[in-house]
Amino acid sequence: MPKINENYLNLKESYLFSEINHRVAEYTKQNPDKKVIRLGIGDVTRPLGDAIIKGLHEGVDAMASAGTFKGYGPEQGYEFLRSAVASYYAGHNISIDPSDIFISDGAKSDTGNITDIFGNDNVILIPDPVYPVYVDSNIMCGRKITYMSATAENDFLPLPDKNVHADLIYLCSPNNPTGAVYSYDQLKAWVDYALENEAVILFDAAYEAFISDSTLPRSIYAVEGAKKCAIEFCSLSKTAGFTGTRCGYTIVPKELVFKSSDGREVSLNALWNRRQTTKFNGTSYIIQKGAAAVFTEEGMAQCMENISYYKENARIICDVFAKKGIRYFGGEHSPYVWFECPGGMDSWTFFDYLLNNAQVVGTPGAGFGENGKNYFRLTGFGTRENTIEAMERIDKLI
Amino acid sequence: MPKINENYLNLKESYLFSEINHRVAEYTKQNPDKKVIRLGIGDVTRPLGDAIIKGLHEGVDAMASAGTFKGYGPEQGYEFLRSAVASYYAGHNISIDPSDIFISDGAKSDTGNITDIFGNDNVILIPDPVYPVYVDSNIMCGRKITYMSATAENDFLPLPDKNVHADLIYLCSPNNPTGAVYSYDQLKAWVDYALENEAVILFDAAYEAFISDSTLPRSIYAVEGAKKCAIEFCSLSKTAGFTGTRCGYTIVPKELVFKSSDGREVSLNALWNRRQTTKFNGTSYIIQKGAAAVFTEEGMAQCMENISYYKENARIICDVFAKKGIRYFGGEHSPYVWFECPGGMDSWTFFDYLLNNAQVVGTPGAGFGENGKNYFRLTGFGTRENTIEAMERIDKLI
Repeated sequence: MPKINENYLNLKESYLFSEINHRVAEYTKQNPDKKVIRLGIGDVTRPLGDAIIKGLHEGVDAMASAGTFKGYGPEQGYEFLRSAVASYYAGHNISIDPSDIFISDGAKSDTGNITDIFGNDNVILIPDPVYPVYVDSNIMCGRKITYMSATAENDFLPLPDKNVHADLIYLCSPNNPTGAVYSYDQLKAWVDYALENEAVILFDAAYEAFISDSTLPRSIYAVEGAKKCAIEFCSLSKTAGFTGTRCGYTIVPKELVFKSSDGREVSLNALWNRRQTTKFNGTSYIIQKGAAAVFTEEGMAQCMENISYYKENARIICDVFAKKGIRYFGGEHSPYVWFECPGGMDSWTFFDYLLNNAQVVGTPGAGFGENGKNYFRLTGFGTRENTIEAMERIDKLI
Repeated sequence: MPKINENYLNLKESYLFSEINHRVAEYTKQNPDKKVIRLGIGDVTRPLGDAIIKGLHEGVDAMASAGTFKGYGPEQGYEFLRSAVASYYAGHNISIDPSDIFISDGAKSDTGNITDIFGNDNVILIPDPVYPVYVDSNIMCGRKITYMSATAENDFLPLPDKNVHADLIYLCSPNNPTGAVYSYDQLKAWVDYALENEAVILFDAAYEAFISDSTLPRSIYAVEGAKKCAIEFCSLSKTAGFTGTRCGYTIVPKELVFKSSDGREVSLNALWNRRQTTKFNGTSYIIQKGAAAVFTEEGMAQCMENISYYKENARIICDVFAKKGIRYFGGEHSPYVWFECPGGMDSWTFFDYLLNNAQVVGTPGAGFGENGKNYFRLTGFGTRENTIEAMERIDKLI
């Protein structure tokens, strides 16, 4: 009889968004006439910019004739796209070697699969609340997780504790779900801690494009020394509306060299390269052509227009909470607004309350961890019209 | 200090195709004037059919306006594509529940990632020679592998041995690299063995579209009872020329239910679903639109035209070996021709010999396992012109 991976039995029953979808489907079935507005899942709604559409069509056209047809590409991504990503970083004064960049089908795959290259006996430090993939992908390997508290008291931006040892540290800034953004000095504290403790930071920068204050770091590599202690994940899902188009990238600097138990020097870049060449066959050429268009002047301008739109939505959400005196976080350099559930409600109770009385779907903070159990996440990813309508309903209800 | 996954240190130094590329690059550098013909890697060369190109363009166009824009899709793939795959199977008299089908970015990802849902204490049975991903993905988890010999004596089609216990069995038919195809009775022997031993067969059907004899099984599910003991991987890479476009699918029947060590019933379909929803965000909508076009009458006719072209190439390769009296396998229901290296050469020696004297690149059998060390693989995936030229050179050389 095959032995299953029994670590899966330790996972919580259902994935957050499946449970939300289930409750919404149930409500809609019972109330077919009610207009439900979804500001829950962090999914974009604006179409792709023209320059990107053009790049994608060109990718498709290349597949139509033998002279330009593309078969297997490099598992790490085409040079043209790796260079485009490196130029994007250079535009923010961060120098990245294109050969340290691995193109993928999205940050969810990479943040999930990165567990492959590490042993199971590491001390894993994960903030609470947090994007569930970091937690679940480690439970799936049977790893013990140490949580660090992100609370209103530390502005949901936990800092290193000298008394806590960690080998692998997950950080996400601008944060999902809280929208909180680490300052340069705060990230530097993490890099200093990692260098001192020989830890590796797994830094999720998926929301970096929402940062408009140039003093806030958009990448962990804005901090000197980070290439010796950090892997960075990023994605075009939020930068360019690629949630359904699928493209991301992960940076594994060749400076990341550690020792195996028998003293051999091992490069994490080489391990990840081996992982990807064995279990991945590269991102579609067509999609990579569209992704490259994101990094052109025209493509980026179109992306920034969409991001401004989403940020204006976030501002509309924040304004209602400010007016009502509800404590909230994020919403400025982030599409996410994270707020305290009114009246001391727990987050699933508030989810049902909001769905039943305002027909607005948000994300209960409990889905992101213990510290989220009295918080709730709304996103600026809806349409302007729906965002305004949802917030008018909430304004009336609360 | 982070503990790396030290199982990676047990992998053979380099991935087969990287080594080939390295040797070819070296040769080309030394001999820039020589025309090298590559019949090595199993990569297609024919452009995508018009119907597929049209489907892809439609997918891109949907992303261009808010009304048709697609964000996150179901991680398991869109219903339209899952149903299209089910209909394709139905066309070969095999009934598959669409909800047992998981759409992915290719069979390499799925055959690599499937290790996630099983424990590390299984007895893994893998044929030798074999597609290296099965071996490497298991070494990466520290699993012990039991090999079964595929040799000229059993026509490279090993059958179950009652005296060998196995929990997980990898089979690939039509086979990569040997081109050998299991008959119905042979596959039935495997299914019977698996049912009796409560083993799971991991069946790779990536080359099923090359079967033209309707009595040969194109799927493990052609055998009754297989849904209780087999997972099937398939891909559009070879069926539809998607090696650079990227789409595949994996079938995990809900009948696959086993017991955990504490006696709980666990569905492999549920485990794989959890794996995919946690570590994968679905295949690009654009690519799924193209994939759906493959399964239309027009799309499939265009794919079959390309497959006939490749099979004619394989016939041209076989004819030379037949004429020369070189023992070969495959090439009939497969793009692969697997032959004994002439003059008792080992396969890497023959690789260099062929590269240096005929400027033809093939794949050394040693890259697929011990039993391949005196064999060599050529593929029908080249252009007609190159295939003819390569075989004329080989005809002269040998």
